[in-house]
Amino acid sequence: MTTLYSEFQNRVKKIKLLESAYSVLQWDMETYMPPNSDKSRGEQLALLSTLAHEHTVEPRVRELVNQLSQSSELTPEQAANVREIKIKLDKAAKISPELIIDLNKTMVDALTAWNQAKKAADYNIFKPYLEKLVILHKRRIEQTGYEGEPYNSLLEDYEPGITAAEVETLFAQLKVELPKILRQIQASGVKPRTDVLLRHFPVDRQEAFIRETIAEMGFDFSIGRLDRSAHPFCTSFHPTDARLTTRFDANNLRTAVGASFHEAGHGMYEQGLLIGNFGLPLGEAASYGIHESQSIFWERFVASHPGFWRHYFPRLQAAFPEALSDVSVDEFCFAWNRVEPDFIRVGADEVSYCLHVILRFELERDLFSGNIRFEDLPEIWNQKMQEYLGLTPPDAAKGILQDNHWAGCLIGYFPTYALGYMYAAQLREAAQEQIPDFDGLIERGQFAPIKQWLNQNIHRHGKMYKSKQLVERISGKPFTVMPFVNYLQEKYSRLYK
Amino acid sequence: MTTLYSEFQNRVKKIKLLESAYSVLQWDMETYMPPNSDKSRGEQLALLSTLAHEHTVEPRVRELVNQLSQSSELTPEQAANVREIKIKLDKAAKISPELIIDLNKTMVDALTAWNQAKKAADYNIFKPYLEKLVILHKRRIEQTGYEGEPYNSLLEDYEPGITAAEVETLFAQLKVELPKILRQIQASGVKPRTDVLLRHFPVDRQEAFIRETIAEMGFDFSIGRLDRSAHPFCTSFHPTDARLTTRFDANNLRTAVGASFHEAGHGMYEQGLLIGNFGLPLGEAASYGIHESQSIFWERFVASHPGFWRHYFPRLQAAFPEALSDVSVDEFCFAWNRVEPDFIRVGADEVSYCLHVILRFELERDLFSGNIRFEDLPEIWNQKMQEYLGLTPPDAAKGILQDNHWAGCLIGYFPTYALGYMYAAQLREAAQEQIPDFDGLIERGQFAPIKQWLNQNIHRHGKMYKSKQLVERISGKPFTVMPFVNYLQEKYSRLYK
Repeated sequence: MTTLYSEFQNRVKKIKLLESAYSVLQWDMETYMPPNSDKSRGEQLALLSTLAHEHTVEPRVRELVNQLSQSSELTPEQAANVREIKIKLDKAAKISPELIIDLNKTMVDALTAWNQAKKAADYNIFKPYLEKLVILHKRRIEQTGYEGEPYNSLLEDYEPGITAAEVETLFAQLKVELPKILRQIQASGVKPRTDVLLRHFPVDRQEAFIRETIAEMGFDFSIGRLDRSAHPFCTSFHPTDARLTTRFDANNLRTAVGASFHEAGHGMYEQGLLIGNFGLPLGEAASYGIHESQSIFWERFVASHPGFWRHYFPRLQAAFPEALSDVSVDEFCFAWNRVEPDFIRVGADEVSYCLHVILRFELERDLFSGNIRFEDLPEIWNQKMQEYLGLTPPDAAKGILQDNHWAGCLIGYFPTYALGYMYAAQLREAAQEQIPDFDGLIERGQFAPIKQWLNQNIHRHGKMYKSKQLVERISGKPFTVMPFVNYLQEKYSRLYK
Repeated sequence: MTTLYSEFQNRVKKIKLLESAYSVLQWDMETYMPPNSDKSRGEQLALLSTLAHEHTVEPRVRELVNQLSQSSELTPEQAANVREIKIKLDKAAKISPELIIDLNKTMVDALTAWNQAKKAADYNIFKPYLEKLVILHKRRIEQTGYEGEPYNSLLEDYEPGITAAEVETLFAQLKVELPKILRQIQASGVKPRTDVLLRHFPVDRQEAFIRETIAEMGFDFSIGRLDRSAHPFCTSFHPTDARLTTRFDANNLRTAVGASFHEAGHGMYEQGLLIGNFGLPLGEAASYGIHESQSIFWERFVASHPGFWRHYFPRLQAAFPEALSDVSVDEFCFAWNRVEPDFIRVGADEVSYCLHVILRFELERDLFSGNIRFEDLPEIWNQKMQEYLGLTPPDAAKGILQDNHWAGCLIGYFPTYALGYMYAAQLREAAQEQIPDFDGLIERGQFAPIKQWLNQNIHRHGKMYKSKQLVERISGKPFTVMPFVNYLQEKYSRLYK
């Protein structure tokens, strides 16, 4: 059995190494590749992706997985690795190669069309591609099968173990609670001076502040990097090579600083995976939602904490004396945490953010249950936006066309953003109970115990547990929306009073 | 036949794509990879290299090559592609996989030992590894076979079509002519003010000057980059993605500027290969020697030309007024072209450079004919250094241990450096005859006709012709050392008078 398991491990590690080489090339494409080199890069990426696929569907891998699945000699960790690979292979085996090719081709065209549509603020340019993508995804669902409702098959790709019905229940509570908090905030009549974040902040000094701060949080630059790209992201090729990117705006401090804190949370997760599990599911993040919980945890619960800014604001003031000498730490912290509903999801405050996500989840789900017509989509988007956030987008570019996720085949992905908030909030509650003087540590800039707690409780487990199970195991409580709602209520009733 | 050729082309292109992905990962390792990420990168590189090898030795590739080799329906270009791949496969097929593994392992250990030996200036630390590498290379030569003498098998890897005996004949002439020129220079009693290159030159302004200048030479930054690394190099993943690196020394202007001109020559060759031939031998550089000829051409014959500095020195003076305001263009140009024999090959002037190479060639050849004992190597090195350059290195670090080529399995590679000089000189003579007002173009900074001439005559042919054949075809003359010797005599009798 040991020999079989070793062979299994070597084979899946090979697939992972190919995927990680692919990721290096993709990172390079987004950061340093010369502007006119994209054609050759496309060919390299296509080959690596084909090779990874070929190694995945090799009959010997399936044989090994089938034999090992029936073994009783495996450790619980080994069994979990086999279980996760089996799930992946079973699903992959059901999808026809023709459909994968068709999906990839359509995605490329859909992304181009989405770009044009967004520029022209014209949904009709994108509509036929969205229709085709939904048809192809319906075919994919037919091939893979599903439990409960078709949409579950998509959700499972990003957040295994949670059904659309469960998401609906959680979101139903948020749809009650979040608007309540928003109304309280609006009724308070209080408004922060948000102009303090929109002054002139020279980019090199922003970068120096970010590097210093995320290193102190625990992002290890000896096994990680920070670069620039058009859209911030985190990628990782191994626990010893995690890379963040951000983009800078000299006239908006939040753009780079906020995004970097967020990406650093992702990066610390990747750096916290166990090296010995590299290549195996237990060496991979639990889910997209749990990944998001780590970025939210650091961006929102640590680096938006008033104590955090009491520690860091003096440094920021020293770095930007022209912009910040007339600003108090309380003013700054209030501006940093301002709540102001907007049409746009990216950069939304933490009270309205999940409402953006809920809207998208509902539309996606309706598209797959056939409850909605493609031509009605922009109108329904706008109605929901009015209902949840009290706003109507001026055009489709600021409405239905604002995200490229659908065009990029990330259908069923949006819910993970909101689940990430809820996981993070429940983890925060547990951390406050389990880590002595949690808030004091943040206020003193002593992040090591917090990072270690996340390393121990989340990172090192990889895919051992499903998301909800992991959160419940750590907190010792059923997973609910309440930690998140309580956090928001407490925080914002204090700020807006 | 068309179908067979297409299949052949697709298969060799796949190999090239894997090799180019490997090169991206290697470039990243030398430029941006975090300091402690090397272990994971080693695994990715090993896998890509194994996959490229597996695709190369697939029986179907050999079948296709054998069938196509016998076809009379191929165009001359297609036939050349098949011919070159056949040579590669024939050699690869003869070398046992065990030997390749043994060579790679020994190389890793040898590089480590070389590093330690160089630090300690102790040849004995490196000696056992060098012995083992030579034994393994002798085994390799036994497996591949050879014509004439064993060393030819190694030389053929880097400079196909030239034998050790031919190299010896060429070098014999250089061993007479170069010392003669050196003696004339020393006898002149003239010395340039070399201090003008060793003043303070802020690195960011050096970089701006380099970027502007190599772009004007013709290096295309829309399909290329310049970054920093410990040792300057050029790599390329496709004609539309060629990357240079350099290193900066704020107190030595030559370090970065000279190396960048050199690497830009390599880079323009890579950018000049035909995109349509990517993946095929006709889409690859003719040889290491011809590659070097392109870097030498730009670094020495264009960018060390007095006319070049008459054009660029005013800009340099404007960029570095503190360092250069009291320097005349003639003084600067003389300093740039100073001849001053030194123990060290890297950075040697163009008169003494080839003598460094000849010394290494002679030692390598003697190691393989058994005319030399390993324990005597440092002493023979020093004797030859005294004989050719009139210097004795103070220790082994500045003598036999200065280069890591042998440790890195680049045995038989050194001669290509000197051949590159000679090819370049003969090409320069041809360019002066064939390009109207060659010197005037350089003096006016109009490099496009020169670059186009190199594109047309050299770059676009890839591996269509062997090195010597290519140079003779372009110049219409037999390949000799005379263009190089004449160039040096004319140039330095004028400078040192």
